[in-house]
Amino acid sequence: MKFFHTADWHLGKLVQGVYMTDDQAYILQQFVQAIEEEKPDAVIIAGDLYDRAVPPTDAVHLLNDTLDKIVLQLKTPVLAIAGNHDSPGRLNFGSKIMRDNGCHITGNLKKDMEPIILHDEHGEVHFHLVPYCDPSIVRNEFGDEEIRSHNDAAKKITEEIKATMDPNARHVLVGHAFVTPYGEEEENTSDSERPLSIGGSEYVDATHFSSFHYTALGHLHQAHYVTKETIRYAGSPLKYSISEENHKKGYFIVEMDEKGDVSLEKKELLPRRDIRTVEASLDELLEHPINEDYVFIRLTDETAVLSPMEKVRSVYPNAMHVERKNYMFSPESEASNEPMERTKMSDIELFHAFYKEVKGNEATEEAEELFKEVLDELLKEENETASPQRTRNAVTN
Amino acid sequence: MKFFHTADWHLGKLVQGVYMTDDQAYILQQFVQAIEEEKPDAVIIAGDLYDRAVPPTDAVHLLNDTLDKIVLQLKTPVLAIAGNHDSPGRLNFGSKIMRDNGCHITGNLKKDMEPIILHDEHGEVHFHLVPYCDPSIVRNEFGDEEIRSHNDAAKKITEEIKATMDPNARHVLVGHAFVTPYGEEEENTSDSERPLSIGGSEYVDATHFSSFHYTALGHLHQAHYVTKETIRYAGSPLKYSISEENHKKGYFIVEMDEKGDVSLEKKELLPRRDIRTVEASLDELLEHPINEDYVFIRLTDETAVLSPMEKVRSVYPNAMHVERKNYMFSPESEASNEPMERTKMSDIELFHAFYKEVKGNEATEEAEELFKEVLDELLKEENETASPQRTRNAVTN
Repeated sequence: MKFFHTADWHLGKLVQGVYMTDDQAYILQQFVQAIEEEKPDAVIIAGDLYDRAVPPTDAVHLLNDTLDKIVLQLKTPVLAIAGNHDSPGRLNFGSKIMRDNGCHITGNLKKDMEPIILHDEHGEVHFHLVPYCDPSIVRNEFGDEEIRSHNDAAKKITEEIKATMDPNARHVLVGHAFVTPYGEEEENTSDSERPLSIGGSEYVDATHFSSFHYTALGHLHQAHYVTKETIRYAGSPLKYSISEENHKKGYFIVEMDEKGDVSLEKKELLPRRDIRTVEASLDELLEHPINEDYVFIRLTDETAVLSPMEKVRSVYPNAMHVERKNYMFSPESEASNEPMERTKMSDIELFHAFYKEVKGNEATEEAEELFKEVLDELLKEENETASPQRTRNAVTN
Repeated sequence: MKFFHTADWHLGKLVQGVYMTDDQAYILQQFVQAIEEEKPDAVIIAGDLYDRAVPPTDAVHLLNDTLDKIVLQLKTPVLAIAGNHDSPGRLNFGSKIMRDNGCHITGNLKKDMEPIILHDEHGEVHFHLVPYCDPSIVRNEFGDEEIRSHNDAAKKITEEIKATMDPNARHVLVGHAFVTPYGEEEENTSDSERPLSIGGSEYVDATHFSSFHYTALGHLHQAHYVTKETIRYAGSPLKYSISEENHKKGYFIVEMDEKGDVSLEKKELLPRRDIRTVEASLDELLEHPINEDYVFIRLTDETAVLSPMEKVRSVYPNAMHVERKNYMFSPESEASNEPMERTKMSDIELFHAFYKEVKGNEATEEAEELFKEVLDELLKEENETASPQRTRNAVTN
C-alpha cells in the first residue's frame, strides 16, 4: 500500500494582502503530476484544505478541479478531513454522494464513524478519518462530561477506535491537532498556524496514536514527526509566513508493507515564488537581478531612505515587506522618558532626538560638533538674507 | 417518464428576520416522502436552491441531507441548476464527482454542455440544464458580442441546444429566468424575487422554449405557465413574502409519454406555519385561539394601541408585522402644508393636528366641542391647584 500524505493546503490564503491561489494552483499541479507518475493507492489531506470557513470562489474552484483530477481522472481515492480553518458543515457537503467515487471528505466528527477500507495484496488498510473539532463537540457526541481539552478529546476518540478496530488489518489515523511528546506546551508554531484554543488546552499527547501503524497529521506547517517516525506532520505544501522561511515544503510518500511497517520518502515541491528574507543595503539590492519571489527586505542602510518599497519593487516586484535593520526605537528610550514637545526644543535638542530616532543610539560628541558647524553656517547665511527671528533658540545647549 | 418539478427552495432565507430553515426542513420532508411514494424517475430543482451565495451552515446541512435522501436512499436522480441567488462556483463544488451517483448540479454555464440523458421504456429523455447566468457570461462563453440582454442570452443558448439535439429523443429544458409571453416587462413579481438585472433587460421570450417537450422553470414564486402548458414555473414550495399570501405552494408531477406529450398534476405542500394577513381590532384578535402562523396583522382600531406587537404575540406568537389599518397620514396632508411648530400651536390647534395624525381626517365640530369641554374642566382643576402659567395659550382659537 502506497499513499501520499499532505496537509494544510490553506486554499484561498492571503499572505500580506496577496492571494496565494495562483501559487497554490502551481504547487497542486506538481502534486497531481506526482500522483500520475507514482500512482499511489490513496491521497491523504490531513485538514485545512481551505484557509477559512467561507473561502473565496477561486479557492473553491481550485479544490474542485484538483479533486476532479485526482479522483475522476487518476482514479485515486482521496481521504480528507476538516482542519480548524475549514467549516465542517460546508466541507461535508456532498461527501456521502462523492464517496462512492472514492472521494472521502469528513467534515463533521460523528460517534461510531466507520473507517475507509482500502485493499492491497496483503489485505485491508483501515483509514480512520478524525476531523478537527472543538472538545465540546466531542463531549456532546460521546456524552462524556469529562472531556475538557483537546487531549481529552483525542484520548476518547482514539480509545473508541481502538476498542473496535480489526486486529488483522493495518490502521492509519488521519488527524488535525497540535500533537506533542507530552501533551504539553510547545513553542513550535509559525505565524500562519491559528491557535486551536486559547488557554493552553490545545496540546495532544502523541502516545494516543502509538498503536496506529501510521498517523497522518495536519496543523503544524513544518514537516516533522513526534516521538516516532510514524506519527508525522506532512507540513504545508507552501510557505505561508516568513517564519516558515527555512522549511522544506512538500509531502510524504508512505509505503506500508504487509506488517504495517512504513518506509517514508519526503518529496519537495517547487514554489512559483519563494517566501524569503533579503538583507542588504539599498545600493546592494539595486544591483540584484530582477526576482519574482515574495521577499521580506531588511535594509541595512544607516541613513534615511525615501520611498523604500517603491525602490525595492523595481528589483523585487512582489516584495511583501520592507524594514530597516538599524532603524528602530530602542525600547528603553521610548519607555524611560516622555519626549519633549518639539516646539520647546532647541535646535541641538531636536538634532539629538532626531539622531536617536533614526539611528537608535545617542549622537556622539563628534556628530554633535559636526552638526553645530553646519547649523552655524546655515544660520549665518540665513541671517544675512532674511529675518533674524529664525535664530531665536539656536545653540542654547 | 415521470419527474417532479420544483424550484426556488431558497434554503437559509430570512423572512422579516426569521430564518425559514425549520419550515423548509418541514416542507422538504413532505417532498422527500412524496418521492418515496410516487417513485419518479427524476427530480428537477430549477434554481435558487439557496437564498444567497454564502448560505448559513444550517441551510448547507439541509440541502446535503435532502440530496442524500433523494439520491442515495431513494436512488432518484436529481437535476438541479443554479439560480440568481446561488453562487455558481460554490454550488458547482463536487458536481462532477457526484454525477455518477445521479446527482447532477450545474452551477456554471459552459458552451457545449452535454444534456443529462435518462431512459424509460420509450427511449431517451434529454435534460438540458441551463443555470442562471448574467448575459455577459453567455457573451464571453459563446464569443458573441451581440448578446446584451437575458433574452439574447436565452436565444443563443436555446439555438445552440436545438442545433445539435437528437430529434429521436424527448427534450426537457431546465432554466431559471424571467420568462414572459413577449419578452417584455411584466408586473408579476413578488417581494421575495430579486430582480435579475436593473434596467428592464431581464425578460426572456417564451417562444425560445416552444420546441422543448417541457420547460421546467424557476425564478417566479407563483406556479404558472407561460403561453403554453409545457413552459412552466413550479413556484416556490413555501411562501417567502406576504405578497405570496394567496399562492398555492407545491410542486408538479410531470408524466411524459412516448411522444413527449405531458400530463401534469399539481401537488400542494402543507407548511408548518402559514404566512397570511389577519385584519381585526385588537379586541377581536385577543378572542382568537392561539395560532403559530407567521401573521401580518392589520389592526382596525381607530384609537391608539400601546405595545401592539406585545399584545398580538400573546395570541400569534410568531406574528411578523403589525400595522394600523386606519392609522396613517393621508398623503395630501403631508404634502400640502408644513406642520406648524408645536410650541407655537394653541391647545385647539394641537388637538386638530393630533386628531388628523391619528385618524387621518379633520376633527368634526362635535369632536372639537367635546375636546374643549374636557380641556376646560382640566384647566379649571389645574388653576385651582397649581401655577397659572399653564393657561398661557389655552382656548385662543
